Amino acid sequence: MTALASAAAELGWEGWVARRQAQMERWLAEQLPADAPAGLADAMRYAVLDGGKRLRPLLVLAAWEATAAHHDVDPPATEPVWAAAGAVELIHAYSLVHDDLPCMDNDVLRRGKPTVHVQYGQAQALLAGDALQALAFEWLAAPPWADRDPALAVALVRELAEAAGAHGMAGGQAIDLACVGRRLDRAALEDMHRRKTGALLLASVRMGALAARAPAAVLAAISAYGRALGLAFQIVDDVLDVTGDTAALGKTVGKDAAADKPTYVSLLGLEGARACADALLQQALAALQALSAPRAQGLAQLARWVVQRQH
Amino acid sequence: MTALASAAAELGWEGWVARRQAQMERWLAEQLPADAPAGLADAMRYAVLDGGKRLRPLLVLAAWEATAAHHDVDPPATEPVWAAAGAVELIHAYSLVHDDLPCMDNDVLRRGKPTVHVQYGQAQALLAGDALQALAFEWLAAPPWADRDPALAVALVRELAEAAGAHGMAGGQAIDLACVGRRLDRAALEDMHRRKTGALLLASVRMGALAARAPAAVLAAISAYGRALGLAFQIVDDVLDVTGDTAALGKTVGKDAAADKPTYVSLLGLEGARACADALLQQALAALQALSAPRAQGLAQLARWVVQRQH
Repeated sequence: MTALASAAAELGWEGWVARRQAQMERWLAEQLPADAPAGLADAMRYAVLDGGKRLRPLLVLAAWEATAAHHDVDPPATEPVWAAAGAVELIHAYSLVHDDLPCMDNDVLRRGKPTVHVQYGQAQALLAGDALQALAFEWLAAPPWADRDPALAVALVRELAEAAGAHGMAGGQAIDLACVGRRLDRAALEDMHRRKTGALLLASVRMGALAARAPAAVLAAISAYGRALGLAFQIVDDVLDVTGDTAALGKTVGKDAAADKPTYVSLLGLEGARACADALLQQALAALQALSAPRAQGLAQLARWVVQRQH
Repeated sequence: MTALASAAAELGWEGWVARRQAQMERWLAEQLPADAPAGLADAMRYAVLDGGKRLRPLLVLAAWEATAAHHDVDPPATEPVWAAAGAVELIHAYSLVHDDLPCMDNDVLRRGKPTVHVQYGQAQALLAGDALQALAFEWLAAPPWADRDPALAVALVRELAEAAGAHGMAGGQAIDLACVGRRLDRAALEDMHRRKTGALLLASVRMGALAARAPAAVLAAISAYGRALGLAFQIVDDVLDVTGDTAALGKTVGKDAAADKPTYVSLLGLEGARACADALLQQALAALQALSAPRAQGLAQLARWVVQRQH
């Protein structure tokens, strides 16, 4: 019996999600600085804690559970998978803090709370985001586990830095900035989203599999899953920006249309966008067939959750 | 004959500086992305290239030359010291880009050129800074050398992430934000500067020595040098903000006083601040006595350069 098979058998899908979310919340609360100078720790903790579905850490953990030679309900506390899950969430959190700034999306509401710059001021929000990015790499290189397996730590740093950087998330955001009011064709829209949100989602599952020391063929299957899921996530995001409601999403809806940003809905229509997301879900599930079905069920459920979510 | 001894003998001090600056400029120009999407590469290159004295890379290289078992004029291209020097410079460059933003220091001139947000807009400047930070860690974890010595790569990532993060540079900037218009005592001012500028200068020499696989006693001497130099640098910066001129410095002078920021000059007076910088220079030079004098001459010259510079 494998990790997730046993965890799922004991906990069920919803029990698994709730358990991993709670573990991650606790891990983040313990690892985030409590004493950085001049309110910086407060702003960092506010940006990260008590919010979000923790989709990226769940993907890291589910990919680890799908591929690791491990049989308990929980990954051991000494495994690098926790640092990988935490680091990915820090990169996500910092990107939201910077993305919400007035010079970017100028958003005042995030996860149902005032955004970091509304709460702490723009300068502190900028610094908190910068410090969160540095902390992500600090966690990946932290003792004791990074000293025990430095080759893995290097692989994780490389994966995350590339996903976050100029050819990944930051590059996608630069395209996003440049294309307001312009019509992108489908290939250009896909390229933007593969970078802007897809790269970090792909990195999440790859880092989980890397942390599990998965062989190359398994890593390839996980990557195919991650690429399909990453794009599906963004398409559903575009759909929800039209059909969702602000209270349930915890962020302002209708902003893309108001900002005249190209989206999958503006390109394919609502039904076309939904059909595209469903097709990508099937692709993601098909990629998992290279893994044993019981072990891959966490990733399969996460893919369904991403595509069928209402917020 | 050791590296710097031979390099200095052949080139002289000014020749050594010019050679290393030119090598670093070429290395950065080759390694920075040329093709990141939507103008992001342009903004990143603008932020980094063709500017600055490259003090931090020079410190990395001089510390390496002072401690490595190496006898050529130049560190070999395959040595991680180049990536370390480049990564430190990226962190410095990104911090300047973010620091110049309107929500921070709102500066329009840097290294004699319009600041990045003046040239490319605030949003692109924010993203360029974010991408430069990610790239710094990508370089430290890059093949082939990080695969050959992953334990060293992990040590460098850890050193740089800690220096850049909440307890280092970002934390120092948070104190800086919080203390405008307040009077800090000397201990608080020193704490701010040890983080804000000192942490990265200290990391520079430590990363050079780590890349050289220096033994613990040598690393301790290098660290003592770096701590004294880091603080001296900031005191001289405070002095130059009063006595320097905008054209020579390539940035706006008199801003600290105008912003009512506490400085060493406001605390100790101009002569008191100068005397303090001189005392720290002597401390830095004394720390180098643990190293062989010919090998340490690059670090000694850099310390004199920092304290006696006019811009």
